[in-house]
Amino acid sequence: MQPRLTRTTVGIVGGGPAGLMLSHLLALSGIDSVVVDHRTRREIETTVRAGILEADSVRLLVDSGVSDRVHREGHAHGGIALRFGGTSHRVDFKALVGESAWLYPQTDVFIDLADARTRDAGDVRFGIRDTRVVDLTGPRPGILFTDADGVPQEIRCDYLVGADGSRSTCRQEVPEARRRHYFREYPFAWFGILAEAAPSAPELVYTHSERGFALISQRTETLQRMYFQCNPDEDVDQWSEDRIWAELQSRVAGPDGFTLNEGTITDKAVLRFRSFVAEPMRHGRLLLAGDAAHTVPPTGAKGLNLALADVRVLAELLERAVRENDDGALDRYSPRALDRVWRAQHFSYWMTTMLHTLPGATAFDVRRQLGELASVVGSTAGSTYLAEGYTGWPA
Amino acid sequence: MQPRLTRTTVGIVGGGPAGLMLSHLLALSGIDSVVVDHRTRREIETTVRAGILEADSVRLLVDSGVSDRVHREGHAHGGIALRFGGTSHRVDFKALVGESAWLYPQTDVFIDLADARTRDAGDVRFGIRDTRVVDLTGPRPGILFTDADGVPQEIRCDYLVGADGSRSTCRQEVPEARRRHYFREYPFAWFGILAEAAPSAPELVYTHSERGFALISQRTETLQRMYFQCNPDEDVDQWSEDRIWAELQSRVAGPDGFTLNEGTITDKAVLRFRSFVAEPMRHGRLLLAGDAAHTVPPTGAKGLNLALADVRVLAELLERAVRENDDGALDRYSPRALDRVWRAQHFSYWMTTMLHTLPGATAFDVRRQLGELASVVGSTAGSTYLAEGYTGWPA
Repeated sequence: MQPRLTRTTVGIVGGGPAGLMLSHLLALSGIDSVVVDHRTRREIETTVRAGILEADSVRLLVDSGVSDRVHREGHAHGGIALRFGGTSHRVDFKALVGESAWLYPQTDVFIDLADARTRDAGDVRFGIRDTRVVDLTGPRPGILFTDADGVPQEIRCDYLVGADGSRSTCRQEVPEARRRHYFREYPFAWFGILAEAAPSAPELVYTHSERGFALISQRTETLQRMYFQCNPDEDVDQWSEDRIWAELQSRVAGPDGFTLNEGTITDKAVLRFRSFVAEPMRHGRLLLAGDAAHTVPPTGAKGLNLALADVRVLAELLERAVRENDDGALDRYSPRALDRVWRAQHFSYWMTTMLHTLPGATAFDVRRQLGELASVVGSTAGSTYLAEGYTGWPA
Repeated sequence: MQPRLTRTTVGIVGGGPAGLMLSHLLALSGIDSVVVDHRTRREIETTVRAGILEADSVRLLVDSGVSDRVHREGHAHGGIALRFGGTSHRVDFKALVGESAWLYPQTDVFIDLADARTRDAGDVRFGIRDTRVVDLTGPRPGILFTDADGVPQEIRCDYLVGADGSRSTCRQEVPEARRRHYFREYPFAWFGILAEAAPSAPELVYTHSERGFALISQRTETLQRMYFQCNPDEDVDQWSEDRIWAELQSRVAGPDGFTLNEGTITDKAVLRFRSFVAEPMRHGRLLLAGDAAHTVPPTGAKGLNLALADVRVLAELLERAVRENDDGALDRYSPRALDRVWRAQHFSYWMTTMLHTLPGATAFDVRRQLGELASVVGSTAGSTYLAEGYTGWPA
């Protein structure tokens, strides 16, 4: 059976936040696109993901007309606590850089974007299978797939964007001789839980302790997200609720008497820790965005924010390429996006290595970490440098 | 033969900058002391040492009346260059924190202090041998030694200060059960040279390169100090002048055409790289100061500055202990001094790991370093945080 053919300007593989936001921004510029994803909308909506948005990510959602739900249901966090030696030290983002970070689950960002695309009659096809991308260096690259109804489809476009996540197949299309993959595996992981409990703190608490890192986060008034550093091969089934709470309580304990509100644990999972960058982010008419091009460890919550930063740049350059018939505009995509990517990689690495117990760490290393934490919270410049990275560098 | 007995308030083992500055500051407060050192004055004067002074170190020398020679013969450096990717980026200390660092050799600091002690009729005994310290926890600790004329001597004091350098014997007097030694060896070293050449840059150039770290420093209009990262077991005899210059030139090379002025190399040596902290810095009536209590790697030039910071605190607290007959004042020495020590340890570690090729570093790690360097020079807060550490935190 001949596939059914669709012509569009930009074909986008991947219907997560990166792909949907790009499609939305292109539509605002009058550029048509088609988004495809092998997952169903329901599958994406039910995956638990982190939820800290940079100030510019929030502005992008609101100002581009996706939704202002983040303002209504999200929570502006004017700072975080760095907790070490059993004492919390607030880093006051609002005072230092005039910005907040926002607590708003990534799942809700996806829902807002998917709703906006539906509202604006965007062409988004979930639940497809057998995806192939072809002719990436020719004038009309294509996406071949079978749609959710079993119908063979072919999309032909001027530009093809791979926003297909950390297990991207699109990035494999860049020939090995033309690409470089940078990688770092961390020898630890996060044990993450969802607990039915009241919040234990008004903002995120990043905790350095003799027993390792812990992060006290929030979700709603009755549901909390918490993490503690563990081995990458940790077996969640070996961890009873009592054992989890004892571990978390011991990591945050201190002379100020800070304790966590406990409750039923409804989810527990081990989150792997890795850094990855694929260079370049462009090959011919293929452009990579978001997790397809880079992965960061979760400390510092840069993953989704980097994806949105990528597509903000990409939408601007694609518009120039299309409007002015100037493919050269796309030459600027990889350098511009990668500048931010490497800052974010460093920021994530910095937050990680400052707060976690590192493998083979001696007593000297632990004391040096405490010396660094004291320097950061004791210096307006040091705190500002951290606040800039956390709330996000200007575009 | 009965030793000749001298009574004094503070006995100081070690006549380097820490011991002499302490003796000088105590004299200003009307407190008598005796300084002893097994080296001759000539030996200390002819040892080549680094020469970057923090702003407060310079003020201490000048304001306490040691000498104002640093102002006349030293050079105020209003910044440094961070060089990476073949381009130099100036960190403007003057603009960022209103301070300069000063280029002034440690040997000259020693000469100024030794001259000042002679001028003020201080009791300083160089070239002694067979030193022993006794009764450190009793009311009258003692220093037993044979003086430069072969006469046995005994000094009895109220407080005994160990300022006897990185191979301190005094610190071994703290019982093992009461002390903790923190240690970190770095798997690289610096190859340092003195060269008869004109300066290649007006300020220090800290260089990150694919071939490893290099530091372009200065000494006088005709003599320059330069370093490059090497293996700890590097054999200096394997390095001809030509090979050294080729290595240095290749590390600083870049599209801006920066090259080094070459000349005859008059000194070459491998400098080891280690971090060390002894805690506590007080045991009974024994107080440790300077290198006797801590060693930092040379990146960031904190060694001498930390020693001077120690004795500034120690002189103040000793004065209180003596004047108010309050030994409790000395309880504050270790915590106050160590707060700065650990900041400096972190600062030195940070400068080191940001700029050197680290063992086992992957291509990811090198790109991340470049991401960090770009973040630091691209952010006023990041640059200010570095400038604060380099020019020295307030006392």
